Amino acid sequence: MTQSVMDERPHDFYPSRCALEAQLLERQDPTVYAPQDTQGPLTDSEVRAYAEQGFLILEDLFTGEELAALQSEQARLRNVSATEHPAETISEQGSGDMRSVFQVHLLSTVFQKLSSDPRLADIARYLLDDDVYIHQSRLNYKPGFRGKEFYWHSDFETWHVEDGMPRMRALSMSITLTDNHEFNGPLMLVPGSHMKYAVCEGETPDNHYEKSLKKQDYGVPSDVLLSELIDSSEIITATGKPGSVIIFDCNLMHGSNGNITPYPRSNVFFVYNAISNQVGPPFCNQPPRPEHICTRKNIQAV
Amino acid sequence: MTQSVMDERPHDFYPSRCALEAQLLERQDPTVYAPQDTQGPLTDSEVRAYAEQGFLILEDLFTGEELAALQSEQARLRNVSATEHPAETISEQGSGDMRSVFQVHLLSTVFQKLSSDPRLADIARYLLDDDVYIHQSRLNYKPGFRGKEFYWHSDFETWHVEDGMPRMRALSMSITLTDNHEFNGPLMLVPGSHMKYAVCEGETPDNHYEKSLKKQDYGVPSDVLLSELIDSSEIITATGKPGSVIIFDCNLMHGSNGNITPYPRSNVFFVYNAISNQVGPPFCNQPPRPEHICTRKNIQAV
Repeated sequence: MTQSVMDERPHDFYPSRCALEAQLLERQDPTVYAPQDTQGPLTDSEVRAYAEQGFLILEDLFTGEELAALQSEQARLRNVSATEHPAETISEQGSGDMRSVFQVHLLSTVFQKLSSDPRLADIARYLLDDDVYIHQSRLNYKPGFRGKEFYWHSDFETWHVEDGMPRMRALSMSITLTDNHEFNGPLMLVPGSHMKYAVCEGETPDNHYEKSLKKQDYGVPSDVLLSELIDSSEIITATGKPGSVIIFDCNLMHGSNGNITPYPRSNVFFVYNAISNQVGPPFCNQPPRPEHICTRKNIQAV
Repeated sequence: MTQSVMDERPHDFYPSRCALEAQLLERQDPTVYAPQDTQGPLTDSEVRAYAEQGFLILEDLFTGEELAALQSEQARLRNVSATEHPAETISEQGSGDMRSVFQVHLLSTVFQKLSSDPRLADIARYLLDDDVYIHQSRLNYKPGFRGKEFYWHSDFETWHVEDGMPRMRALSMSITLTDNHEFNGPLMLVPGSHMKYAVCEGETPDNHYEKSLKKQDYGVPSDVLLSELIDSSEIITATGKPGSVIIFDCNLMHGSNGNITPYPRSNVFFVYNAISNQVGPPFCNQPPRPEHICTRKNIQAV
């Protein structure tokens, strides 16, 4: 007697879309996996802040020389991405300017080295208490004058529904490569929002990622849920100088406004996932997204 | 012998569009018209700041009760504007939400009274050293979640080209009715930019105002000019509590980013023009814009 396909499917701890009603569910996973009192690369107060707020901003992790090398690699990739890496490159709606290049941890030796740099990877391993691999990486470039917004979202909602990431045991690191002013569309974070899972309405359309990476219309929390999350907390804008590292939990609600100033905003972004939390079949009726958006085959501990 | 029509046309001190090349011209008019050492409603340092920066922000001009009355009138107008004042109401592209209601100094006795309040009008009369009338008034409402940007512009460029305002002898007052945070698309101002006139490229299309009030594509300064203005100065965001009054010169470069936060942003906006600076024929090959956007017939000193 064989089990049916349905029985083999892992349990869905975080259902979303699939005609569900918008609601906030309790998080069912830790934020910090390291056992208490384990010596790690962060101070006690940093760990506490990360657990409570769902994010942490570190400055001065890199030397000026290292930062300059990252910025120059960013400029190089931005110039060649459309011709050399068309599949991995997402352009802005309207202007056609480069918005993101995916899989930069494989396309660029500079960013590959950065993704496994112990100053970053040790923190990821510590917080997730496991070996980690890069679930997704990208270079984000929000141009000046006509930079579009990134609407509010929890990354985990998409990674869970569209990629089949089972549990909340992943985190992102955004390494800023330009000044983030209050006025050029900096990352906005809602402290504590990682403790609630915002169930989104609607289905997942065919080839959703082709559109959602330009402008997301599904997997978007409702106005009511957003107001509930933000009214019970606040909005923090991650302003700061280039070279800052913003570490945030996979389920933290975040977004950014558009940018009409002349100052572009650029960062390189790594998602560290626990090796034990590898993706399975998506939790929607769609085939998995391509490898350059979600690492599925090429799992390598950094 | 009669003069030709061309000869009767007033001289164009600030040409723009009409196939001209983008460039910065020197301002040819004073910013503060009051003779030096005239006693007025502003302190010496406020007058100096306004002359140099092109704007001034005043707080606590109104009592809490007065502010509450303005906010409640704003809410009332927003609810009835689409049905009762469709011609004066501009909605957002896409969502159809109300973006602006024009001519509120005639549509609403509350805002009519506010426009002639000596705490505002005395300052306008002083800075422009003349009797003043309302060239344009509007209630602006940038909704939460999906508020669109207002791109960079000098108001004077449009009022000159499309309305035929001859000289720079007008100013705007924006009275904020909501909190302006750094993250909900506050007004951004470029100090000192009022001293340069940014000649814009392109023509003025037919019925331009019908589109430009939603999203401006003509009368828009080039990226190069904007960078030049902003790099030689800075960007100031006008954040603050409701009831602040932002006074700014007609030629000051300003704009605002979009707003994905749940917090709407609303203000009431009066343009005071010197009686001696009444509009004439537009400086483009288009008929004048309608009366509710540009006062042409109903000139009344406030």
